[in-house]
Amino acid sequence: MRYEEFTLEGRNAVLEAIRSGKTIDKVFVLDGCHDGPVNTIVREAKKGDTIVSYVSKERLDNMSKTGHHQGVIAYAAAYEYATVDDILENAKSKNEDPFIFILDGIEDPHNLGAIIRTANLAGAHGVIIPKRRAVGLTATVARTSAGALNYTPVAKVTNISATIEELKKQGMWFVCADMEGETMYKLNLKGSIGLVIGNEGEGVSRLVKEKCDFIAAIPMKGDIDSLNASVAAGVLAYEIVRQRMN
Amino acid sequence: MRYEEFTLEGRNAVLEAIRSGKTIDKVFVLDGCHDGPVNTIVREAKKGDTIVSYVSKERLDNMSKTGHHQGVIAYAAAYEYATVDDILENAKSKNEDPFIFILDGIEDPHNLGAIIRTANLAGAHGVIIPKRRAVGLTATVARTSAGALNYTPVAKVTNISATIEELKKQGMWFVCADMEGETMYKLNLKGSIGLVIGNEGEGVSRLVKEKCDFIAAIPMKGDIDSLNASVAAGVLAYEIVRQRMN
Repeated sequence: MRYEEFTLEGRNAVLEAIRSGKTIDKVFVLDGCHDGPVNTIVREAKKGDTIVSYVSKERLDNMSKTGHHQGVIAYAAAYEYATVDDILENAKSKNEDPFIFILDGIEDPHNLGAIIRTANLAGAHGVIIPKRRAVGLTATVARTSAGALNYTPVAKVTNISATIEELKKQGMWFVCADMEGETMYKLNLKGSIGLVIGNEGEGVSRLVKEKCDFIAAIPMKGDIDSLNASVAAGVLAYEIVRQRMN
Repeated sequence: MRYEEFTLEGRNAVLEAIRSGKTIDKVFVLDGCHDGPVNTIVREAKKGDTIVSYVSKERLDNMSKTGHHQGVIAYAAAYEYATVDDILENAKSKNEDPFIFILDGIEDPHNLGAIIRTANLAGAHGVIIPKRRAVGLTATVARTSAGALNYTPVAKVTNISATIEELKKQGMWFVCADMEGETMYKLNLKGSIGLVIGNEGEGVSRLVKEKCDFIAAIPMKGDIDSLNASVAAGVLAYEIVRQRMN
């Protein structure tokens, strides 16, 4: 995939992309820059609920490949996002209890790609990621997903806790991975379930953990702290698969 | 970790490193170059059972960071290798049935690092990798293993099939991952076990598969072909953990 397809530099390129309805993951704007065109870009981006980050000139220069960013760089999504409703619809059309992955801040595109790949093969109906402090559907994620992004819908939400709350009202249960939980083999993970995977370094955030019905621990017999996030997601997902098969 | 610690360029640097007993993963020699010093390097490398690859000048120039490779570049291991006996000894000292990962040609250093990390946490006693057509213990592998390389011994062998044959004589059973096998939940994976994971693209090679006692399939409910290699290793390893815990 070509770089130009997903990184937009310069005021016109970014504004045009936003206005054309293209999904923009993030807009980076030169800190302190508030002239007319830049204000228009920020306003249009926020209308579409796109995250705007104010960054230094050095940062923009480093991100730029053309050298002509004019104070504005945007990352377009390599794939279109789905909605949470699309994911529920996917489960319904297969006549299955919903099985959804919720990723609470995965930052590494290789991990996100591998997790979407796992979600597809474990028979999950979709993946939910947050808008902030997480990687979006970049070209690296698409490549690492090994094609799974073509089949498994990914929705991006503003507030993971609120989305969990909403889905609980519709009868879903939520399990998150944490070392202090109960051994996963002892939990009942059948039925409509959301599997919550935390950030690579920090794990699941406190607010999100409080919303979960179960905290599942993967048995750890070794000397180090934790599994790679995509491996942990795979191990937990397949415990859910095992229980659903019984 | 600094580049210079692990990549050696030039005849003297490479020959000195080999003679000092440093573990060299691979030596790259300019194709067609057979003068005295180069012949000495090749002879000494082969004595230590190091793989020698003959490559084009373009390839060497691309690998070189100093621009002074003199027709020879070597990769030193970032960590020392253990032996298969060290791994068996590790199991014995813990009074446990041996549980060993055998990697049949993992090429991506991030996968190798993540798998060593999983091996540590799943309570495996060591990891066996082949000398040829596989990544060794590079600095990237060390970093991705998240410290597991300090605890979990990794042995490098010339012939994976022969090593499996040898370990079978000592009472070990071998299971490999393959889509055409039996669902892993139905197999008995207790006792002294070797878990064989194949190459990212090709899977487990035919010769190695023929040596295995069981072929285990991870249930695949999705649209794409296969899990990421390190995720598949994690899912299978934890099925072994689950059965061992019962």
